[in-house]
Amino acid sequence: MGMVGGGTGSFIGDVHRKAAAIDGMIELVCGAFSSTAEKSIASGLALNLEKSRCYGTFEEMIEKEKALPEATRMDFVAIVTPNHMHFPPAKMALENGFHVVCDKPVTLTLEEAEELQKVIAKSGKLFALTHNYTGNSMVKQARAMVAKGELGIIRKIQAQYLQGWLSTSLEKTDQKQAAWRVDPKKSGIGGALGDIGTHAENLIEYITGLNIEEIAADLGRFGEGRVLDDDGNMLIRLENGAKGTISISQIALGEENNLGIKVYGTKGSLEWYQENPNELITRWLEEPKKIYTPNGNGLHEEALEVSRIPAGHPEGYLEAFATIYKNFATHVNAVNRGQSINKPDYPTIEDGVRGMKFIYAAVESDRNNAAWTKIN
Amino acid sequence: MGMVGGGTGSFIGDVHRKAAAIDGMIELVCGAFSSTAEKSIASGLALNLEKSRCYGTFEEMIEKEKALPEATRMDFVAIVTPNHMHFPPAKMALENGFHVVCDKPVTLTLEEAEELQKVIAKSGKLFALTHNYTGNSMVKQARAMVAKGELGIIRKIQAQYLQGWLSTSLEKTDQKQAAWRVDPKKSGIGGALGDIGTHAENLIEYITGLNIEEIAADLGRFGEGRVLDDDGNMLIRLENGAKGTISISQIALGEENNLGIKVYGTKGSLEWYQENPNELITRWLEEPKKIYTPNGNGLHEEALEVSRIPAGHPEGYLEAFATIYKNFATHVNAVNRGQSINKPDYPTIEDGVRGMKFIYAAVESDRNNAAWTKIN
Amino acid sequence: MGMVGGGTGSFIGDVHRKAAAIDGMIELVCGAFSSTAEKSIASGLALNLEKSRCYGTFEEMIEKEKALPEATRMDFVAIVTPNHMHFPPAKMALENGFHVVCDKPVTLTLEEAEELQKVIAKSGKLFALTHNYTGNSMVKQARAMVAKGELGIIRKIQAQYLQGWLSTSLEKTDQKQAAWRVDPKKSGIGGALGDIGTHAENLIEYITGLNIEEIAADLGRFGEGRVLDDDGNMLIRLENGAKGTISISQIALGEENNLGIKVYGTKGSLEWYQENPNELITRWLEEPKKIYTPNGNGLHEEALEVSRIPAGHPEGYLEAFATIYKNFATHVNAVNRGQSINKPDYPTIEDGVRGMKFIYAAVESDRNNAAWTKIN
Amino acid sequence: MGMVGGGTGSFIGDVHRKAAAIDGMIELVCGAFSSTAEKSIASGLALNLEKSRCYGTFEEMIEKEKALPEATRMDFVAIVTPNHMHFPPAKMALENGFHVVCDKPVTLTLEEAEELQKVIAKSGKLFALTHNYTGNSMVKQARAMVAKGELGIIRKIQAQYLQGWLSTSLEKTDQKQAAWRVDPKKSGIGGALGDIGTHAENLIEYITGLNIEEIAADLGRFGEGRVLDDDGNMLIRLENGAKGTISISQIALGEENNLGIKVYGTKGSLEWYQENPNELITRWLEEPKKIYTPNGNGLHEEALEVSRIPAGHPEGYLEAFATIYKNFATHVNAVNRGQSINKPDYPTIEDGVRGMKFIYAAVESDRNNAAWTKIN
Repeated sequence: MGMVGGGTGSFIGDVHRKAAAIDGMIELVCGAFSSTAEKSIASGLALNLEKSRCYGTFEEMIEKEKALPEATRMDFVAIVTPNHMHFPPAKMALENGFHVVCDKPVTLTLEEAEELQKVIAKSGKLFALTHNYTGNSMVKQARAMVAKGELGIIRKIQAQYLQGWLSTSLEKTDQKQAAWRVDPKKSGIGGALGDIGTHAENLIEYITGLNIEEIAADLGRFGEGRVLDDDGNMLIRLENGAKGTISISQIALGEENNLGIKVYGTKGSLEWYQENPNELITRWLEEPKKIYTPNGNGLHEEALEVSRIPAGHPEGYLEAFATIYKNFATHVNAVNRGQSINKPDYPTIEDGVRGMKFIYAAVESDRNNAAWTKIN
Repeated sequence: MGMVGGGTGSFIGDVHRKAAAIDGMIELVCGAFSSTAEKSIASGLALNLEKSRCYGTFEEMIEKEKALPEATRMDFVAIVTPNHMHFPPAKMALENGFHVVCDKPVTLTLEEAEELQKVIAKSGKLFALTHNYTGNSMVKQARAMVAKGELGIIRKIQAQYLQGWLSTSLEKTDQKQAAWRVDPKKSGIGGALGDIGTHAENLIEYITGLNIEEIAADLGRFGEGRVLDDDGNMLIRLENGAKGTISISQIALGEENNLGIKVYGTKGSLEWYQENPNELITRWLEEPKKIYTPNGNGLHEEALEVSRIPAGHPEGYLEAFATIYKNFATHVNAVNRGQSINKPDYPTIEDGVRGMKFIYAAVESDRNNAAWTKIN
Repeated sequence: MGMVGGGTGSFIGDVHRKAAAIDGMIELVCGAFSSTAEKSIASGLALNLEKSRCYGTFEEMIEKEKALPEATRMDFVAIVTPNHMHFPPAKMALENGFHVVCDKPVTLTLEEAEELQKVIAKSGKLFALTHNYTGNSMVKQARAMVAKGELGIIRKIQAQYLQGWLSTSLEKTDQKQAAWRVDPKKSGIGGALGDIGTHAENLIEYITGLNIEEIAADLGRFGEGRVLDDDGNMLIRLENGAKGTISISQIALGEENNLGIKVYGTKGSLEWYQENPNELITRWLEEPKKIYTPNGNGLHEEALEVSRIPAGHPEGYLEAFATIYKNFATHVNAVNRGQSINKPDYPTIEDGVRGMKFIYAAVESDRNNAAWTKIN
Repeated sequence: MGMVGGGTGSFIGDVHRKAAAIDGMIELVCGAFSSTAEKSIASGLALNLEKSRCYGTFEEMIEKEKALPEATRMDFVAIVTPNHMHFPPAKMALENGFHVVCDKPVTLTLEEAEELQKVIAKSGKLFALTHNYTGNSMVKQARAMVAKGELGIIRKIQAQYLQGWLSTSLEKTDQKQAAWRVDPKKSGIGGALGDIGTHAENLIEYITGLNIEEIAADLGRFGEGRVLDDDGNMLIRLENGAKGTISISQIALGEENNLGIKVYGTKGSLEWYQENPNELITRWLEEPKKIYTPNGNGLHEEALEVSRIPAGHPEGYLEAFATIYKNFATHVNAVNRGQSINKPDYPTIEDGVRGMKFIYAAVESDRNNAAWTKIN
């Protein structure tokens, strides 16, 4: 693969590289890692790339790689830049015959996302969005349990994604991660909404198989001088009549990365937290609480096939992330061999567009004092 | 004390009796336990009362006890009936010179609550409302930490009270606990709102020392044929600008009695769950997570004085309930001796009126499709 | 009941009183609370007793109470003194027709315990030993599961009772609780062994229904100048061939009251901790981990009948302690009415003698450099 | 690197490959994966290796790789075979100029381990033993806290490594993992002792910096027909006078991979479990319990440098394993460039010899009915 963004010091670029490496299916062969050719080369050399394949811009990378022999050139592009730099390289890569993996939220604006959807369709290329948490074994188990009807009809949802790292005015220091996230030119109209809210939304829809139909959002901008939300409390209604809440925050002081979900049905309920990802808590009408673990007893096939190691050997953030890459790489290999592929078991542009609609609906609701707003 | 309600088979009457007994300060001497004299006597005899002090009605109890010598007669009345039967005995007891302990929500209607407030003021008698969870040692610690400014300015709240016992149509069986709770004539305009929602509201205001200013409530009535809410998702705004959510449910299948709260400030945060009441989780800007325990290291006086036993010996629901009774009995003793008393360290009619306003605001908001509604 | 020991400031006396009070079956009517008549009266008055029934010595109490009319006098004596003061009042009470509740370990020496066993048999009176942890609902469930064969053949045990309160030389301050516990004249030949080790031993034998057959003990005396053990590590072999460990300590710094047990069988396993007593963790060959809770789903009758309140309302140390008193009082009532009684569901002198033999075997093993020593 | 063992279907070979891949420093270039050339080639091709570098035997691999140009040939050999096949390839690789990574226990016999120690010394090559759990961030923090004296003098240790996968006679099915582990020809004189006991021993010595001086071991052979231990309970004494227990099992039904350790000192204590590796629980004389997390607040440099991702993003088994590889690869790079290296921050042959001595002492103690036996 070739990478756009992710130069030395980047958080998410390094995550993508490690995740892509774990299963031994993907090799990083080139990149346009930084805003200058010099920095990009330095980053690439530190990653043991050949200097000739450390490019100054994504345009250069796509053009030069395209000119290489098929066996040599990158198979797909991984885009790990801030949000405003997702669409341009994605579009160009797809139009030049490369598959694309892209970080979330998919684009800066909803318009871009819908445009990208068309570009993908036209290109016939594969596109994966790294809603990485859906790669967890216990999330797969949760989804399978709901899909098989084991929880009955879903009635209630509680989802949260709580962080505290923006409790202080971190963006006023030289912390690059903070700076772009609070800047609407780079993040879009959502702050925490785009950065973590879309993960919560995606997790709800992935596990329940149900769309969020409407939302009433009360966003907070607690950090001094912030124009984008750094906190949000939301009521949600799902397409089947279920109700619930989403609470997100980047000012929930002391929280590290507390993504969690509870789903209550008429026959059973489940609960999962990404900080403790190797447990799926389930509750039942007449039986005691049961705790599932990766590769443990009683799992569905969908969960078993995700685990890399025997029960009791914890897998974490990188492994779940790697599952997205693994499933994507499997599709890339199949397509490259001219084989037909099944429905993707990784997030796609449809998830990306849903995420952008969620951000837009939440922002609109908030502007209207938390009035109910449709997501569609 | 004398008891109104709480005949054989009652859940909460038995809780009140055990809670009142633990600290050896209170003796049950009489009661009007049931709707018939026969049942009341049977209940009283089973509790080792003298038959002559097992009354057929609360009116009879209050009159006859009043006629007894001061040293013999009950000191106060404990009211443990369904909501619609709180106001009449409370009013009569107060007007006849008895102090009162009453279960929550304080009355059937807001009007009754406000009327009762006047009756209490006029009577000069003591009144305690059993928001029992505020009796927990770790809740006292939480309140003290906020009051002393250790958490800084409160920005975000998440509260929940989740039960699953009404997941099925339990009220259609002969379960008495379920039957009256889904009946507006006995419960009032709130279902889960009154039964458990007021506990969540009270806990927020008790710990933070801040009033909830407005609320946007989306209530659910999932049980077939139910007219009262059995589920609710709410946005809240506190008087200081903090925001948050309250989620309550009696159809959250498999949940037993999951009352919990998270409070996030600018300097620290805290988290507490009543099902695991002997832990207070705190988070800090620069220090690791700290877990406080009853009678453990680092507690404030307010928490220490509540614990009955050394650290590591778990106290539970009854002990917290008992703390309300103990603090109330201490006041009763003081008043009986003609001593002046400090500010009550137990919930009072003010908490009761706040609770009723919370119910009314939530119901009104829900009728207006979750529009923001003031609580005042 | 009448109490021996437990004057103002006593830890365990207060626990016994609260535990006896919870269920409304037992009334404290007299006591010999302290070593002087003056202190005893002060303690008794603070407990609302009549001055005439606050005695200076246990001998006085037993004699004077015996002289009272049957309906007035105490039914049984509760002994809550340090170990060396268990045997004399127990013997005298039994020989004068009173039932006895006694704290553990049952006596100062094994000889006393065996003597007491004879006294009890001769007296025909009831005797309960407050191994209070066996009163927990989840311990009852554990015992029932093993008894019904649900765990198969027991193969492995891990038990621990870890405290840290003697990490420092607390006995050199004026802490009375510490002082007598490190004094062989008052504690006997075991320090931590008697104070907490017997609880671990009793819990193993209660849950598994199996005797510990032999023990290899390596005791520690870490506190400066201590002659009694304040720490112990032990290998155990059970009568059925199961093996395991017991680890006890009062110098495990930071531990509060961490009594726990794991039992592994050929079909299932279980795990329980008294600091979190409302969970029983179970593991199975082919099913996921299941967590039982008091009054929750899937319990046996033995566990259900112990819970006082609905699922999710935590019960703790006092409630478990109260269960011993409740079951004992039920027997006392039956005997007083001339009814026959079933096998006691509370610890008896047999448990007391087992406990003393455990202490003696552990001390002997330790003297022989942890050589295997029989308990019999 | 080149791999010996780890053909298709192997558990630990796959773990080594993923762990080596995560940090992008190591590339698998060749292997002798299986007992036949045919299987080895199939395994290698599935791993995208060139057929020419898929060897039939480790001898062939070492010889042919040695003949390749320096820039092309493998830098080191990773040995992931059953125990009896550790020594021969390790010795040959070292004697032919290759560094070695080897799974644990280091060899089949103590004699081999001591011989290997000499071979390594003579070769001047690097040798790493994959006691992978020491690669966890929280284990590094624990070790640093002890080393800096924050816990004071260590007094008590509890360590356990509990698995349940050999509860049934799994070796009588065609489960390859089980078969060789119960076979003394392939495992050596220790069963669970070698497979997991050495991890517990190594973790104790790594965290405390103290050697276990003597051991009293009671081993179990519960599985029908097993000649090697599948369970063990041990008393330990450390060189500084601390005492403790080690409990290991592969018949602890339902346990997955429950390695845990508690260390109690005179100033503080700590507790860690590998199934929940992202928490380090600490207890203190006067402060509340503190929970450390990877990349969280209050960590020492030794822990911080191990974490790959921000706080709250769980790292697991593979990441800890990868840390061993990363630190080893850093040394390999330095040595290849002729640079001097610091003390290894990965387990070495010294740990390997300690582990073998531990196994031998435990087996000898068990033969002598758990008599104290020195480890030296």
